[in-house]
Amino acid sequence: MSVARVTEISATSSTSFEDAVNRGIARASETLRNVRSAWIKEQQVRVEGGKISEYQVNMMVTFVLDD
Amino acid sequence: MSVARVTEISATSSTSFEDAVNRGIARASETLRNVRSAWIKEQQVRVEGGKISEYQVNMMVTFVLDD
Amino acid sequence: MSVARVTEISATSSTSFEDAVNRGIARASETLRNVRSAWIKEQQVRVEGGKISEYQVNMMVTFVLDD
Amino acid sequence: MSVARVTEISATSSTSFEDAVNRGIARASETLRNVRSAWIKEQQVRVEGGKISEYQVNMMVTFVLDD
Amino acid sequence: MSVARVTEISATSSTSFEDAVNRGIARASETLRNVRSAWIKEQQVRVEGGKISEYQVNMMVTFVLDD
Amino acid sequence: MSVARVTEISATSSTSFEDAVNRGIARASETLRNVRSAWIKEQQVRVEGGKISEYQVNMMVTFVLDD
Amino acid sequence: MSVARVTEISATSSTSFEDAVNRGIARASETLRNVRSAWIKEQQVRVEGGKISEYQVNMMVTFVLDD
Amino acid sequence: MSVARVTEISATSSTSFEDAVNRGIARASETLRNVRSAWIKEQQVRVEGGKISEYQVNMMVTFVLDD
Amino acid sequence: MSVARVTEISATSSTSFEDAVNRGIARASETLRNVRSAWIKEQQVRVEGGKISEYQVNMMVTFVLDD
Amino acid sequence: MSVARVTEISATSSTSFEDAVNRGIARASETLRNVRSAWIKEQQVRVEGGKISEYQVNMMVTFVLDD
Amino acid sequence: MSVARVTEISATSSTSFEDAVNRGIARASETLRNVRSAWIKEQQVRVEGGKISEYQVNMMVTFVLDD
Amino acid sequence: MSVARVTEISATSSTSFEDAVNRGIARASETLRNVRSAWIKEQQVRVEGGKISEYQVNMMVTFVLDD
Repeated sequence: MSVARVTEISATSSTSFEDAVNRGIARASETLRNVRSAWIKEQQVRVEGGKISEYQVNMMVTFVLDD
Repeated sequence: MSVARVTEISATSSTSFEDAVNRGIARASETLRNVRSAWIKEQQVRVEGGKISEYQVNMMVTFVLDD
Repeated sequence: MSVARVTEISATSSTSFEDAVNRGIARASETLRNVRSAWIKEQQVRVEGGKISEYQVNMMVTFVLDD
Repeated sequence: MSVARVTEISATSSTSFEDAVNRGIARASETLRNVRSAWIKEQQVRVEGGKISEYQVNMMVTFVLDD
Repeated sequence: MSVARVTEISATSSTSFEDAVNRGIARASETLRNVRSAWIKEQQVRVEGGKISEYQVNMMVTFVLDD
Repeated sequence: MSVARVTEISATSSTSFEDAVNRGIARASETLRNVRSAWIKEQQVRVEGGKISEYQVNMMVTFVLDD
Repeated sequence: MSVARVTEISATSSTSFEDAVNRGIARASETLRNVRSAWIKEQQVRVEGGKISEYQVNMMVTFVLDD
Repeated sequence: MSVARVTEISATSSTSFEDAVNRGIARASETLRNVRSAWIKEQQVRVEGGKISEYQVNMMVTFVLDD
Repeated sequence: MSVARVTEISATSSTSFEDAVNRGIARASETLRNVRSAWIKEQQVRVEGGKISEYQVNMMVTFVLDD
Repeated sequence: MSVARVTEISATSSTSFEDAVNRGIARASETLRNVRSAWIKEQQVRVEGGKISEYQVNMMVTFVLDD
Repeated sequence: MSVARVTEISATSSTSFEDAVNRGIARASETLRNVRSAWIKEQQVRVEGGKISEYQVNMMVTFVLDD
Repeated sequence: MSVARVTEISATSSTSFEDAVNRGIARASETLRNVRSAWIKEQQVRVEGGKISEYQVNMMVTFVLDD
């Protein structure tokens, strides 16, 4: 009978989508306690000179509220 | 000409979906002032041994910001 | 080979979502003949003082047209 | 590292949406092992004489596959 | 390699949708640092006596988190 | 515990989207009593000779039913 | 600068989807003046004994309002 | 108070979309008992040499479970 | 390891939806090489005097790019 | 029995959403002949120092193909 | 003129999304013959102590039915 | 105040989704100038003998138009 909040986080990485997910969760965990899961909402890349320069992921992060 | 925020809350109950909505709103109202409405986004149940063990509701909660 | 119309009805109740569905269908049946079904489109609640004051349901009501 | 299947079940009840969810899960559990959860996809009602005669719920049921 | 949050803001104006967007962003910037963009999610109007009395906009506001 | 209907209205204007919304609501209010709100569903423009000749808005108009 | 209404019509045929569209529009035109277009929203079939017994189409019908 | 399952079937035909629906339902009825309806989810065509070589339909097929 | 483009084509016919699909693909194949498939995105009809005057189909056409 | 193409255009303006629509259509008309309409797909704003610095509109532009 | 079924599979991995896809397809292929493709429907991660503990993928798996 | 176009590209790879994104962007950059970003629309895999033989990504590629 817990209550959780869900917030959207956008994170970027120069190497891969999964690294972007990792960075976003690490940063979110600094200010939000009890992060439990993240649902991938959107994935996109920035392009420079015909090559990917940045991977961006938007995700819905769920964290449980303390009683 | 008010401004409000909308945040996603996930709440569970062992008895019904409406009890889950009630619990989520009660918990949200402890930390958020001026909660005005909640829009049901998702409903799901957990199952154990062929029976429902938990009702979960995700809802978008609107609360008015103070000036 | 019947033809039906589908119209959106929004109804409220102070007790539950299902009571809101019932009230909306009862009211719709006063002016629309041959109501056959209703599909739940949206569910939301109004909140006052941290408690639910009103349950609202928007539904797509199907009624068969007379020949 | 489990693998699960998700299948859509449609169930009806003459009393309430939650009773329809219960009946659908009970029936699914007779033939599917390890049912874990169900996500409500659609809710609708049948109407006769201006009153609800049947509650119908379509839900996505998840069950874990044996190794 | 920045991380941002996205939050939903609902704002109203008696004059236009764009004024509502402006008011929402101004109010959000009082409490959120580094607001960068807003994506319009929904637009609606309130009506009184056959005329528009209020313009409402719901928008997803992105603000960059400090390191 | 009111009951309302929601109907889709499509309106056009040669000057702006908001003028189209205004015209649609004014026309709807001639035949529908108690119009309360309108949710913008779609916006499009007609083009002639590289310039906008018409703004069109489709909106879901809510009007309360008399008891 | 015309104003139109859009209403959902559901029609069936024992022969084809297009015959269902035709029947729905013919029936709608008996009670609605100035029908201009219809957008196909859903198509489904009823089945009996492994064969299609009925084609059903739900469509959004637009008709222009008189000034 | 019946319980039904809904499963997605993809079928193709060299002549028309409706023939593809027919073939899919005929094939599904060989292995599934009590097929009652099918909702068209997607329609696409394969093209060879500027002409349609195949019509494909994906549909959600509902079949009632035996008690 | 091919790369393809997907473009939206809107085509009309006075006889049927499938004829509209055929005409759109024939016309697209005049200027686009290697058209492989088309996914039906929208279907609508124009109506005059209570009868269908035109069938319109919007489709996403896939064509393979030359190396 | 015309055939049209639909392409997505993203345009920006420092003054308003409608100016962004106008600029996008003017620019598209330089390279695309017979532009007939544009459907608004997305609206967003860039923010600097708590104020809107840019209005951006993404729209689906339809232009008729020559025979 | 083949007929295929499409079923939803949910699979997890402790290393990556693509490993989860691989595991799901390997497991599905044990009980389903002629698996041809899988469309990624949802991606999410479980989090423990600020780090990803599990990658989960839900996918729609298509397998051709034997004649 | 730039204007950009957005076009859908489908690309495949035998090794990973990200390699497919890379290949699609590299190929698109050969014929389109000023490619700036790509939004992932769909991800799917082809399967042969219970193993992934091909990764396919559909993405919306944005490229800025020259003045």
